[in-house]
Formats: sequence, structure tokens, C-alpha cells
Amino acid sequence: MATDPTPSMIAEIIAVGSEMLTPYRQDTNSLAMTAELNKLGVTVAFKTILGDTFQHLVDAAKIALTRADIVLFSGGLGPTEDDLTREAVASALGVGMTRNETVVEGLKQRFAKRGLVIQEINFKQADVIDGAKLLPNPNGTAPGQWMATEYGGKPRYIALLPGPPKELLPMFVEQVRPRLQQVIPRLHIAYRWLRMAVVPESEVDARTSPIYLSYPDVSTTILSTGGEIQLHFLCAKPTLEEAQERVDEVLSKCEHEMMDSVFSADGESLEQVVLLMLGMRHLTLSTAESCTGGLIAERLTAVSGSSRSFLGGAVVYSDELKALFADVPKELIQKHGAVSDPVARAMAEGIRARIGSDLAIGVTGIAGPGGATLNKPVGRVYIALADAEGTQVRELNLSGDRERVRWFASQYALVMLRQKLLS
Amino acid sequence: MATDPTPSMIAEIIAVGSEMLTPYRQDTNSLAMTAELNKLGVTVAFKTILGDTFQHLVDAAKIALTRADIVLFSGGLGPTEDDLTREAVASALGVGMTRNETVVEGLKQRFAKRGLVIQEINFKQADVIDGAKLLPNPNGTAPGQWMATEYGGKPRYIALLPGPPKELLPMFVEQVRPRLQQVIPRLHIAYRWLRMAVVPESEVDARTSPIYLSYPDVSTTILSTGGEIQLHFLCAKPTLEEAQERVDEVLSKCEHEMMDSVFSADGESLEQVVLLMLGMRHLTLSTAESCTGGLIAERLTAVSGSSRSFLGGAVVYSDELKALFADVPKELIQKHGAVSDPVARAMAEGIRARIGSDLAIGVTGIAGPGGATLNKPVGRVYIALADAEGTQVRELNLSGDRERVRWFASQYALVMLRQKLLS
Repeated sequence: MATDPTPSMIAEIIAVGSEMLTPYRQDTNSLAMTAELNKLGVTVAFKTILGDTFQHLVDAAKIALTRADIVLFSGGLGPTEDDLTREAVASALGVGMTRNETVVEGLKQRFAKRGLVIQEINFKQADVIDGAKLLPNPNGTAPGQWMATEYGGKPRYIALLPGPPKELLPMFVEQVRPRLQQVIPRLHIAYRWLRMAVVPESEVDARTSPIYLSYPDVSTTILSTGGEIQLHFLCAKPTLEEAQERVDEVLSKCEHEMMDSVFSADGESLEQVVLLMLGMRHLTLSTAESCTGGLIAERLTAVSGSSRSFLGGAVVYSDELKALFADVPKELIQKHGAVSDPVARAMAEGIRARIGSDLAIGVTGIAGPGGATLNKPVGRVYIALADAEGTQVRELNLSGDRERVRWFASQYALVMLRQKLLS
Repeated sequence: MATDPTPSMIAEIIAVGSEMLTPYRQDTNSLAMTAELNKLGVTVAFKTILGDTFQHLVDAAKIALTRADIVLFSGGLGPTEDDLTREAVASALGVGMTRNETVVEGLKQRFAKRGLVIQEINFKQADVIDGAKLLPNPNGTAPGQWMATEYGGKPRYIALLPGPPKELLPMFVEQVRPRLQQVIPRLHIAYRWLRMAVVPESEVDARTSPIYLSYPDVSTTILSTGGEIQLHFLCAKPTLEEAQERVDEVLSKCEHEMMDSVFSADGESLEQVVLLMLGMRHLTLSTAESCTGGLIAERLTAVSGSSRSFLGGAVVYSDELKALFADVPKELIQKHGAVSDPVARAMAEGIRARIGSDLAIGVTGIAGPGGATLNKPVGRVYIALADAEGTQVRELNLSGDRERVRWFASQYALVMLRQKLLS
């Protein structure tokens, strides 16, 4: 599923905070940091998540310093009794801390400005691990720390970062990344990805793995997420040209292999791609949705500027509304049922005529869990796409729960629209 | 933010798989397992995420067995060279493995049935750590393993579970949980939660912390997520009655304090609550959405059975569609602008009359990033709610990006509807 060229250095990310050990919260900081580290040619080999317990923290820091070249801590830098990352890292390294008077003054002034009396405990945030450098935090009160040191005779790079993503990410990108770049063997990284819709992951893997496995110097990851398959390619080389050339080559071979399913080689979403194609062709679109209940309209209008091509539509759940807004004849519904090829067709044609758009989508189906009949199981969906030349209808038999059926129905509708615009 | 009574046992969850060390994937199995463990009175103190490297796995298993009573592994049980969890745990414990002939036979038969020749490597899945018990996997091929043993002279409980959530969760709930219940000091757990909409987390915390902090035996967690604040209460006692009484007491005090903002004390979503209230009152609803682009209709129709109360609506992005589907007079838009109190009002009243629903919502606003004017900044939204007695309009000035403005607009619309139905 994934190939991984030998990395130059490995990193461990340690997320500190009891809330991330509840069923409700996850560490998310590590994802963006991993993306940045990978682009430096660094592999994240371990992630540890633990709470605000001093001895746990000290032990985890020692373990990480033993097994990783780069150790990044997030969280536990605030002013409360629970914030123990500074103390624990100093203890793990066997060094002391020194209070930075400039930071103390800054804290005093900030409190005085608001007319507050500062409590002694706040000054913890000014404690700097001996040998470390303070990282200013323009987005919060707790500064970070950076340290290049040795542990067990090996070079180690350590960063202590605040937990809130809006403080951590800028500090990592602006202050830690450049320092890492100076100590990491210089490599240039090229990265691109392919996005495909409604094709099975196993098929993509079977068709593209003979290609990407012949590029052992390109790290390839295949991902499946909500009716979309992604192929990510990353290559590290002494020059950017070399790296870019390898990534472009494997990407274009995979793109050629998967031709019809690929909707984007530059990162755009499926919604963005169809809106772009509509815009370029000066075409407008409307929708009449039954089982998707507004999901297609919602996905399109989530894109800024969508109003240039998407005029709007109707959510026609009941038979009455199918008649009222999309002029679907009552008799047609009586004869074929609301979930049928002719009704989907009439919905698309009706909303298109009513709104006066160039193209129109009509969707009717059984999202479940209720609503199934003898002939029509849950997951049966009809999608119609109408334009001046006529109307095409596609019958789907989707599996999964209500949410999955609705999402895949919207996904297939957008894919149908894209294929129409391609032809 | 959270209080935590002293736990009886601590657990570590180890997620094995290189894909969880990419920027694209996270371990999610640990969340559901944590919820179940907490209900047994067990605290998750550590989570470790690591790749398919044998020595890393052995070391991580040893570290976990040193610091946690219960160690749960997910992933790495498949038939490939990369699946090393079994081997690593046996090595960490210093014991061997024995091939289970029943599992071997089962694998042979499964392959023969499909007319496939089985490769030797598949039999790895039949290797059982000496002293462990096999856990059948009705949802996949790789069986799990359970072991009650000692490490460093202390009792240790170990489970090896397959990575796919659809295999892991049933195996954990049906086979591991009952075994843990037998070895954990018996406590009964009560758990309830409160859900509140569009109220600041800091306000909820300021008003409820004096209450929940006086219940040190109840673990309280406050969470903020997309226009919703949740208060989770969990209590472990020798009898269920004692635990339930404590949770009910702190919950009802907090509910009383937050009165108007609480929409659910039993877990229902805001959409479910308003649909339930509409249903009980035999009232119907329709929507005319501009800036939310179908999001309100989508959220309502995501609930199974919503068609009983929600008739449908229109996505009226352009001025023409506001006239066509909601009978908004052109002159009104010319005079006040499409984003205005009178237009929102006309949208709600127009769609209500057209569809013949008891209630109707109209939403118009500037979701951004474009579209702002001198008088109307990004985030300005008007929500109108019409019924037979008249129409109320609320002006909002929301902050954040397009996605946040749209989501909060939909959230406020549902809250307004709920308050109307309460009154």
C-alpha cells in the first residue's frame, strides 16, 4: 500500500494533555507537523499521547530521546500546576532551568495593563531549560523552547511547543522548521497527489502499484476516503529538479493508467473541478434533490464563488414538492413510484426548465434505514443529468448506512456531471 | 476543565501501522475503546502510535508492560511480512508461539472454497503466543489474542486486536470487555451528558464549574465542537444506584444553571430534537436558503424519518431564484439588498406560503470570503422564522471562514426554531 524510501532522520511527536486521553478528543497537531517533517525528508516513527503526570512525562521524554533524532512536544507549557512539560524535559536531560527576566517583565506588564495582580505561578512560563532557546509566541502567552543537544552520545533536536493549534503551527513553521532545515542533511522535496472518485481502492492499487513500485525513491501512499481515492507521491533528492522530475514522472504514468477516474492532479476538490469546468464553458447548473436532501447544493455552495455557475435548486422530499418545484407529473409518480428512472428524469428536466439553467441534476432514492420496498432496496438511487440535448439517468445500488448512501449519491452525481462536461 | 477521580487500573493503547504516521490518517480505534474502558473505571494513561518495525514494536511493548496494567494492541495481525504484532509481543514477553491447527484448517478451507492456493505466509495468522487465548474474528480473517500474565512481577492483561474498526470494535466489546470485567475491581459506572448550542465554552465553564467541582467523585469533561458545548459526567461506585444518583444530581444542577441553552440531556442531536418537537406538535417545516446553500435542509434530512415534519425547501442563491421559488419581490431586493432583514423575512414568508408548511426558515447572508460591502461585512447573516402568527428575524455577525459562517448560521437557525417551539 505504501512505499517508503530510507529516511535521513526520524522524529517522535509527544502530545501532552489529559483531554487527549478521553473518548472525545484527539491529537491533531501531529498531522500538520508530520506533513512539514516529511517535506524535510524526516519520517515520524512514533507518536506518544499522555496526560499531565510528571513521572509519566519524564519517562516518555527519556524513551523518545533514546529512539528518535528529533523530539517534538506539544502542550503542557501553560501557567497552571498541570503544565509540566518544561520541568519534565529538564529532568529527563538532567539539567536545570533558569528564569528569563525579559519574559517575567513581559508577563508583569501584560497583567498590569489589564489591572490584574500576577500570581507567582505564572512566572513558570519564563523558565528556560538550560541550553535551550526561547521561541516567542505572538499568538499566546506561553513561549516555546528549542534545543540542540546530545543524549546517550547522539545528537538530539528538541522543541517544546504550546498545545493550541493556532499557536503551535505558526511557531513550528516559522521558528522550528528553519532550525531543523539547518541540521538536517539538505534534501529538496517534491510532492504531488492525484485524486480519483468512485473507483475501488483495490482496483487503483492493482493498476498503479506496478508503476509506483518501480520508483523506490518515491514515497507513495494510497488513501481511500468517502468515495475518493488519493495517491500521494513524495520524493527527496539533492536538487529540486531531480525530485520534481521523479514525482512528475510517476504521477503522470499513474494518471494515464487511471485516466477517466482522475479528477484532479493539482489538489482541487471534485466540487471545485466541476465548478471550474462549468465556469470555463459559461454553463449554469441547478439541482432537484430528494434523498440527498440538499447535500449536492450544500457541497457546491461550500465553494466560494460558486454562484457564478450554480444558480440554486430545490429540496423536494415529498411528492407534492416534486410537482410544485420541478413540475413532476403526479401520474408519473403514481405509475413508477417516486424512486424511479422516469421520476429522476422528470425532476432534472423540470428543475432545468423552471430555473432556466443549462444543466440540471435530479436525484431520487432510498437512503434508509426505512423506505425499502420489495423491488427497491435501501441504497437504490437514480441520478438524472439533463441538458439541451437530452437527459441521461444512472441507476445505483449503494451499500452502507444513510449517511454513506447520501454521500455516495452526491459523489456519483458530481462525477456524472464531470464526465458530461468532459465529453 | 476536567476533574478525574483516582482510577483503579490504567491502560495503554498501542496502534500499529505506518499509515497512522502519515499526515493523512489517525488512529481512531482508541476513542471507542477509551469510552468502553472508562465505563469500566479504567483510565487510558498512554497512547502510542508506531509503524511496522519489529524492534520498535518489541521496545514499545516492553515500555507499555512496564507502565500500564492493561495493554491493548490494534493492527499488525494480518498475513503479510509487515504484520509483526504477534511476534513482537511474544518477544517482549520472552515466550514462544504455537501454531493453532484449527485456525490453519480454517484458512485452508477458506482459500480452497475460492479456488485459491494458500501461501505459507498466511499461516502466520494461526500463531498463538504461548499462554494466550485466540479470539475468533467473525468479521475478518485475522483472529485476536487475549492474555492474562505477569510482567516484572505485576499482573498484566494484554489484547491483540485487528486494525479495521469493523473487526476491532465487536471483538473488543464482545470478547475483551467481559474478560476485563472479571479482573477489574468491580465498580458500577453511570454516565450522562448535556448538549448546549451557541453559548461560549468560557461561559459554560464559569457557570457550571462551581457546581461540578463540588462533585470530586464525578469525572466531568467540557467540550466545545462546532457551535455546540458538551458536558460529560462519569461516576464509578460500588453500586449502580450510588453512581447514577451522583451523575443525575450534578447533571440536573448544571442543566438548571444553563436552562435555555441545553437542548438535550439524553444524547439527541439538535436536528433530532427539533424534528421530535415538530412531530409531537404535528407541525411541518420548510426552508429557503441563500448563504447556507442547502445546509439546513441537508442537516435535517440526514435524520431518518425527517420527511414526516420537514417538507423540503429551496436553495435560492440568485435574486431570480428568490423571486421564482420564494416570491421575494424584486423591488425589495433592490431597496434593501439581498442580504437584509426584509429579504430574509420575505424568503421565510414566501416559501411558507408556497409550500404550505406551518413554519418556515429563511436565511440570507455573506459567507465570504467575497461579497462584503461597506455596510455589510463577511459574517453578516439574517435568519427569519415565520409561522401563522408572524415572522421574527435575527441579525448575526459571525466570525471565521466560509465553512464556519455557514455552519453557525445553520446552528442558530435550528436554535431559533427550537426556542419558538418551546414558547
